Amino acid sequence: MTTETHFQKELEELKDNLLKMAALVEEAIRDSIQSLVGRDSDLAQKTFEFEDRINKMENAIDDMCLKLLALRQPMAIDLRFITSAMKIITDLERMGDQAVNIAERAISLNQEPQLKPYIDIPRMAEITESMVRDVLDAFVHRDSKLARSVCERDDLVDGLNDQVVRELLTYMMSDPKTISRSVHLMIVCRCLERIADHATNIAEDVIFMVDALVIKHHADVKD
Amino acid sequence: MTTETHFQKELEELKDNLLKMAALVEEAIRDSIQSLVGRDSDLAQKTFEFEDRINKMENAIDDMCLKLLALRQPMAIDLRFITSAMKIITDLERMGDQAVNIAERAISLNQEPQLKPYIDIPRMAEITESMVRDVLDAFVHRDSKLARSVCERDDLVDGLNDQVVRELLTYMMSDPKTISRSVHLMIVCRCLERIADHATNIAEDVIFMVDALVIKHHADVKD
Repeated sequence: MTTETHFQKELEELKDNLLKMAALVEEAIRDSIQSLVGRDSDLAQKTFEFEDRINKMENAIDDMCLKLLALRQPMAIDLRFITSAMKIITDLERMGDQAVNIAERAISLNQEPQLKPYIDIPRMAEITESMVRDVLDAFVHRDSKLARSVCERDDLVDGLNDQVVRELLTYMMSDPKTISRSVHLMIVCRCLERIADHATNIAEDVIFMVDALVIKHHADVKD
Repeated sequence: MTTETHFQKELEELKDNLLKMAALVEEAIRDSIQSLVGRDSDLAQKTFEFEDRINKMENAIDDMCLKLLALRQPMAIDLRFITSAMKIITDLERMGDQAVNIAERAISLNQEPQLKPYIDIPRMAEITESMVRDVLDAFVHRDSKLARSVCERDDLVDGLNDQVVRELLTYMMSDPKTISRSVHLMIVCRCLERIADHATNIAEDVIFMVDALVIKHHADVKD
């Protein structure tokens, strides 16, 4: 095989690993929310195991990228692809940490009577998971249109979050006994919102990489 | 000048820019907290201006790193230094976003009577600022001992955060009229805690880079 073909094969392998890491993160988010909605603290415990697997994948992909940079000395779009991959895995790893935070709150919440039916939170989680999945697809297929649709979904998540926070404030004000549970639920929402922000950060990188256009700091996105 | 001397000069310039970006972030945090403690909403407005400057520095340093990778094809420690710099500026930029979040909460809080004397929050901010300053020093001087001291300070920040959250919960439970202000203050604390987490993430990268040792995923650090 020529050096060029080798390099292309290595890039394909890198893409596969990124998609695998994203799938793992998506699963961690889904399980953490399921542990809350299904009041299943055993499932919450299992979510903690994802953390280690996600961290190991981050380290392995990081090493892979460093080796590609050192040995293949890529240029232009390939160079940008690899440095973006190194930033993306940091975002993915932190999304995994947020899933762990959600599972921790689920365990606390499951010990008390359920405060309210969970409707908006699973909806937020669903959108957030789709953002994680699609943004990695957008990255490996260099699809800036798909990346833009991920940025748009961030507004939906922020809107749902505002709605839940308003509702929880009403609960807290009318009955102080609900305060501790409301705060836990607010933090769950904030974790989902932060996962969506990470996905949006990646989406901005994808758009930058593909269109070589810094839209990043024109959008009003907070971390 | 030889290519080697040129490269060394470029690396020095990169280090200078990283320190300048960190100083800007530190200033943004200080001003955002001062706008809360001094009930100075004009100062809070000024904090928003940092965001643009920080974002521009992020883009400029990112470009610089890409050029160094493409033109100088660095190896080993220099390669790791440059890829770490690219991750660090992402963390710095997000710290800047957190300072903006704090300033936004300060503006809301300054419109109502002050809930309580601010003692722990300025203390948290002071430790957090020192973490930002020291972790960048540790990075450019490859000082893993200083980086470790940054990781240790993260526990102090977490401890203070827990203390403030407990206190605010007491306020909320005894008087529902304090709930909205308490939630704002909880979010300010969470922003500071997240800045400290970003600094800790960088500190772990420094230790990794210097000691080529993955302590990252043995420490119990959440994003």
